[in-house]
Amino acid sequence: MLAPPAALLFDVFGTCVDWRSGVARAVRDAAAPLGVGVDAGAVADAWRARYQPQLETVRSGARPWVDLDALHREALDEVLAAHGLDALDARARDELTLAWHRLDPWPDTVPALARMRRHAVVAPVSNGHIALIVAMSRRAGMVWDAVLGAEIARAYKPQPEVYLRAVSALGLRPPDAMMVACHASDLVAADACGLRTAFVRRPLEHGPGGPPEAPPDVAGLVADDLGALADALGSPS
Amino acid sequence: MLAPPAALLFDVFGTCVDWRSGVARAVRDAAAPLGVGVDAGAVADAWRARYQPQLETVRSGARPWVDLDALHREALDEVLAAHGLDALDARARDELTLAWHRLDPWPDTVPALARMRRHAVVAPVSNGHIALIVAMSRRAGMVWDAVLGAEIARAYKPQPEVYLRAVSALGLRPPDAMMVACHASDLVAADACGLRTAFVRRPLEHGPGGPPEAPPDVAGLVADDLGALADALGSPS
Repeated sequence: MLAPPAALLFDVFGTCVDWRSGVARAVRDAAAPLGVGVDAGAVADAWRARYQPQLETVRSGARPWVDLDALHREALDEVLAAHGLDALDARARDELTLAWHRLDPWPDTVPALARMRRHAVVAPVSNGHIALIVAMSRRAGMVWDAVLGAEIARAYKPQPEVYLRAVSALGLRPPDAMMVACHASDLVAADACGLRTAFVRRPLEHGPGGPPEAPPDVAGLVADDLGALADALGSPS
Repeated sequence: MLAPPAALLFDVFGTCVDWRSGVARAVRDAAAPLGVGVDAGAVADAWRARYQPQLETVRSGARPWVDLDALHREALDEVLAAHGLDALDARARDELTLAWHRLDPWPDTVPALARMRRHAVVAPVSNGHIALIVAMSRRAGMVWDAVLGAEIARAYKPQPEVYLRAVSALGLRPPDAMMVACHASDLVAADACGLRTAFVRRPLEHGPGGPPEAPPDVAGLVADDLGALADALGSPS
């Protein structure tokens, strides 16, 4: 058996927290005073769907690095217009953008992180900026050794500098670290940088009707949730 | 009374951990196989004394940003030569440099940080790089919400960008954050950036014979240790 990784680096949106339920809840709360019916899950999906095209404008160099709050706020205007929620005022839109700071962890996340942190450095490597990850983690009870990711690298996953900067910030070489994610593209990119990889199944990420994502061929481990990953790594209970 | 700060930013070397005792212990361990007598406290003091002149070479722009491991390792050669420890081989010198990763917290540090973290974001704003702070914090049991400081800003305190970058990474304005340190120069610089400040007395930082440092005029709070600071901030027990 290989030596356990010195560091475990976690995708956050989807892998550690349930973004769709949390965003849909905030959309329902925001829409209630307007007295209009809304498919809050569809709004959450549409908002999230703008995410990769937006990130691409930063990754391509078409615009300088900006944080996710700015990208979420921009996308929100288009999403609301498309869903009959034009009446939401600017203040409510600013508040709704903070829904991405207030996402619940999956039930297994917090205890599994605590178990794995006993033998490995645990850190998020997310496209979320530090302020967002800190606010979300404090609310959710997720304890990290450091907050790494997009803001440290001034780049967005799957750009290689995000993974490589995280590893070097911890004083490690890529094979000493394992990227943990429920998205194949994240692990393919981390693998190309020389990191070890673990795929975690999150079949409810896109809601009860969402298609489950399949692990990529490069995945070194595949686990049904973070608790199962902790078991596979031999983390103490 | 003012609103409590949203974030508490901590100097680490001296304020949270006892660098002199930890470094002296490692020097004694390294010197033992050589069979030569050594004043380990004096070696620790001499090593630390090289620190500010070294940082100044980075702050002045004379050399690019390098981490504290590199600076500590460079300084060590001169310090050993001056203290009759030339016989220490390269491997032992590399190992001894890691003494700065293995410093004990003052007895009040860990419980006080845990108390303050219940109502405020807590983060180190140290000249130590992320890998060093993570290793030290895991060993000591210090739990942070994020690891900020020199490496994030690619600058060294008391350069203003270190304080301002830490505050902006948390999505805050300077008056929402309080810098906590046992060094007047740190607080004078933080105050000039608009942060609130708290001075913590650490009379043993430089050993039993070391002169105690006096709080600067700008200090918003003065506390006898971090437990007393937690009391002053109304942190729950």
